[in-house]
Amino acid sequence: MADVFNFSAGPAMLPHAVMRRAQAEFLDWNGTGVSVMEMSHRGAAFTSIANQARNDLIELLGIPDNYKILFLQGGATLQFSMAALNLARMSDPADYVVTGSWGQKAVAEARRFCDARVVASSEADQFHSIPPVSEWAISSDAAYLHYTPNETIGGVEFHHVPDIPAHIPLVGDFSSNILSRPMDISRFGLVYAGAQKNIGPAGLTLVIVRDDLLAPVRDDVPAMLDYQIHADSDSMRNTPPTYAWYLAGLVFDWLKQQGGLAAMAEHNQRKAEMLYQAIDQTSFYDCPVRQLDRSRMNVVFRLPSIDLERCFLVEAEAAGLLALKGHRSVGGIRASLYNAMPLDGVMALVSFMQDFESRMG
Amino acid sequence: MADVFNFSAGPAMLPHAVMRRAQAEFLDWNGTGVSVMEMSHRGAAFTSIANQARNDLIELLGIPDNYKILFLQGGATLQFSMAALNLARMSDPADYVVTGSWGQKAVAEARRFCDARVVASSEADQFHSIPPVSEWAISSDAAYLHYTPNETIGGVEFHHVPDIPAHIPLVGDFSSNILSRPMDISRFGLVYAGAQKNIGPAGLTLVIVRDDLLAPVRDDVPAMLDYQIHADSDSMRNTPPTYAWYLAGLVFDWLKQQGGLAAMAEHNQRKAEMLYQAIDQTSFYDCPVRQLDRSRMNVVFRLPSIDLERCFLVEAEAAGLLALKGHRSVGGIRASLYNAMPLDGVMALVSFMQDFESRMG
Repeated sequence: MADVFNFSAGPAMLPHAVMRRAQAEFLDWNGTGVSVMEMSHRGAAFTSIANQARNDLIELLGIPDNYKILFLQGGATLQFSMAALNLARMSDPADYVVTGSWGQKAVAEARRFCDARVVASSEADQFHSIPPVSEWAISSDAAYLHYTPNETIGGVEFHHVPDIPAHIPLVGDFSSNILSRPMDISRFGLVYAGAQKNIGPAGLTLVIVRDDLLAPVRDDVPAMLDYQIHADSDSMRNTPPTYAWYLAGLVFDWLKQQGGLAAMAEHNQRKAEMLYQAIDQTSFYDCPVRQLDRSRMNVVFRLPSIDLERCFLVEAEAAGLLALKGHRSVGGIRASLYNAMPLDGVMALVSFMQDFESRMG
Repeated sequence: MADVFNFSAGPAMLPHAVMRRAQAEFLDWNGTGVSVMEMSHRGAAFTSIANQARNDLIELLGIPDNYKILFLQGGATLQFSMAALNLARMSDPADYVVTGSWGQKAVAEARRFCDARVVASSEADQFHSIPPVSEWAISSDAAYLHYTPNETIGGVEFHHVPDIPAHIPLVGDFSSNILSRPMDISRFGLVYAGAQKNIGPAGLTLVIVRDDLLAPVRDDVPAMLDYQIHADSDSMRNTPPTYAWYLAGLVFDWLKQQGGLAAMAEHNQRKAEMLYQAIDQTSFYDCPVRQLDRSRMNVVFRLPSIDLERCFLVEAEAAGLLALKGHRSVGGIRASLYNAMPLDGVMALVSFMQDFESRMG
C-alpha cells in the first residue's frame, strides 16, 4: 500500500490512528470475543460505548444541559424534512439563508411542509460569498431560521454565528464543519450533521436539539422523524447504526487527545492558510470565493483551462493525492481539509501544485 | 480471545470469513490506499462495490426485472411508516396480520397514515401460533396486506408465503429471515429487511419493491421516505451507508460460496431441528410455540423456573455461549440461529443444555 492523501469531500478520510485502532478491535472488542457490530445495542458493552461517545461529545462541544444529543440515520437530507416537520406547521413561515447548493436543497424540501422563504441568497454571486446579516429579510414570526455554515461545493463558510433575533430558533446544517473549531451551542435551537466528513462513516447523523423544540408542532410526523421520540428513547427507538456510533466515539476520543476543538481550530486554520497562500501567490491558480468567506474545510480553485485541470487531476492521483476533483456541478479542483487531514497532506499538495505550475505554467 | 458463539437476536454475528476479510481490507481496499468507508459514494471504486452487491443479491434471490432494490437507512421501523405513506392514502384500508410484537408496531404506525386494520392476530394465543389464511378477514379493497414472516421475540415463522387475492400487494417485513432460504419475490409487492440479522451491520435497510408500487400515492411524503426518489437515484439521493452496503456485499458473496439459499435452507433447517429436538426430548425445557409455526431463526424456550433460567444464562455466558437471554418483554431463553451461526454453535449449546439439565434437573 502506497502512502496516499485522500482529499475526498465525503465520505472523507478518518484519522489514521482511529482506523488502526478500529482494525485492531474489529473482531474482538475489549475481550468480549465479538465485534462491536455483532453486539446487541441494548447490552452492557454497547451501552458503555454509546454513553462514552455521547459524554465525550458533550465535553468537546460544551453542550449545555438543556440540549438532547441524538445519533440518527438518513443524513442531512433527512434533516431537511425533519427540521421543517418538527418545528413548523404548514402555514408557518420558516426563513432560509441560501449560500450554496445544500441550502438550496434544504429550502426546496422544507417548502413541501411549511412556508419556507429564502430571506437571503448569494446565488446572484454564484455562491462565492455570504450576504451580510444586516441584509437578511428575517420574518418576525419565523418558526426558525436555517443556514448552512459551510457549503462543500462552493467552498464558502460562515466564520461567525449570525446574530438574529433571540426568539427565532437558529438551525444550522453543520455537516461539513462540525467539530472543526469550538462553537457556542447555546446560540442554536437545532444543529445537525451527517457524519461522513468530520465525525465518522456515512450512515450516522448527529442531531443536537434544544429541549423546548423537541416536541413536533404537527401530529403527522412519522415516528422515526420525530425528535421527541428519539430523545425519549436515547436514540434507541429501534436499532441504531451501532458500528458508526462506535467509530464516531473513537473520533471524539481522538479529538480529545489532539487537545480538543481549540487545538483543531488552530490546526485547520494553518492548513487552510497554507493552501490559500499557495493559490493566491500565483495567477496560475484562482480561488473564486471572496476572501472573508472562504471555507477552511473545502478549498476550491481553478486552473487556466479545463484541459489543464484534467491533467492536474490525473497527475495528482498518480502522485497519491486523491479525490481532488471539484463537484460535477461546478468543475475545477476541490481539496477537502477536514480534521483528519494531516498538515503533511497539505504540504504535499502545495508542493505538487508548485511543481505542476513550473512544468505547465 | 476465547472461542465464543454469539446467539444475539440482532445486531447478530456475521460470518467469520466475512469479518476476517473485512478486517484485512479495512485500511486499504483493493490497493486504493483508502478504506471503503473513506471513499466517495459516487467514485468508480464504490460504484463497483455497490453494483456487485446488488447483482449478487439479484442472483441469490432470483429477483425479477420488474423490481427495484434499494439500500436505505432507518431500519424496519422506518419502513412501517414508508410502506403506509407510499402505498396508501389516509382513507385507504390496509390489512395487517399480527403474529407478534413487530407486527403490532407496524400496524400502530400505519394507523397514523391510513385505515390500517388487523385482519388476523394470534394475540389471544400469546403469539404462539399463526392464524390460518382461511380465517383472515382480508379487505377486498386493501391497498396492501402486511405480515411479519418471522417474529424474533415470540419465535414464530411463516413457512409458506400466504396465498391472498392477486390484486392486493403483499408486503413482508423479512428483517429476521431474509436470505435464510429461497423465496419467490414475484409473490410480493414490497419486501423489506433491516440488515442486522441476516444481511450485515445495523444501519442498512434492504427494500425490494415492484415497479408499479414505486410512485407514492400521496404528495406529502418526505423525499427520503419516497421509494420512487430512491429508485431513480439508485439509492444515492444522498450519501448511503457505504460501509454497511460493502459488508452486505461480502455477506452476499459468502452466501454464493456456501451454495446459495437452497444450501442455507438445508443448513438452517438442520440447526433448528437439532435444537428443537433437544428441547422436546425432555420436560426440563419447554418451547411454547406451536410445532408447525416454530421459527428456524429464533428458538425460544423456558426452564422450570425463572431462577433456573437466570442460572442457565450465567453459566452459558461463562461457557462462551453469549446473548441467550430472551427478549425483556417475554423472558426465558432465546437462541438466534441466523445464517452465520455455524452448526458447531448449536452443537455446543445442545451439549451445554444436556449437561445443565443433568446437574440441575
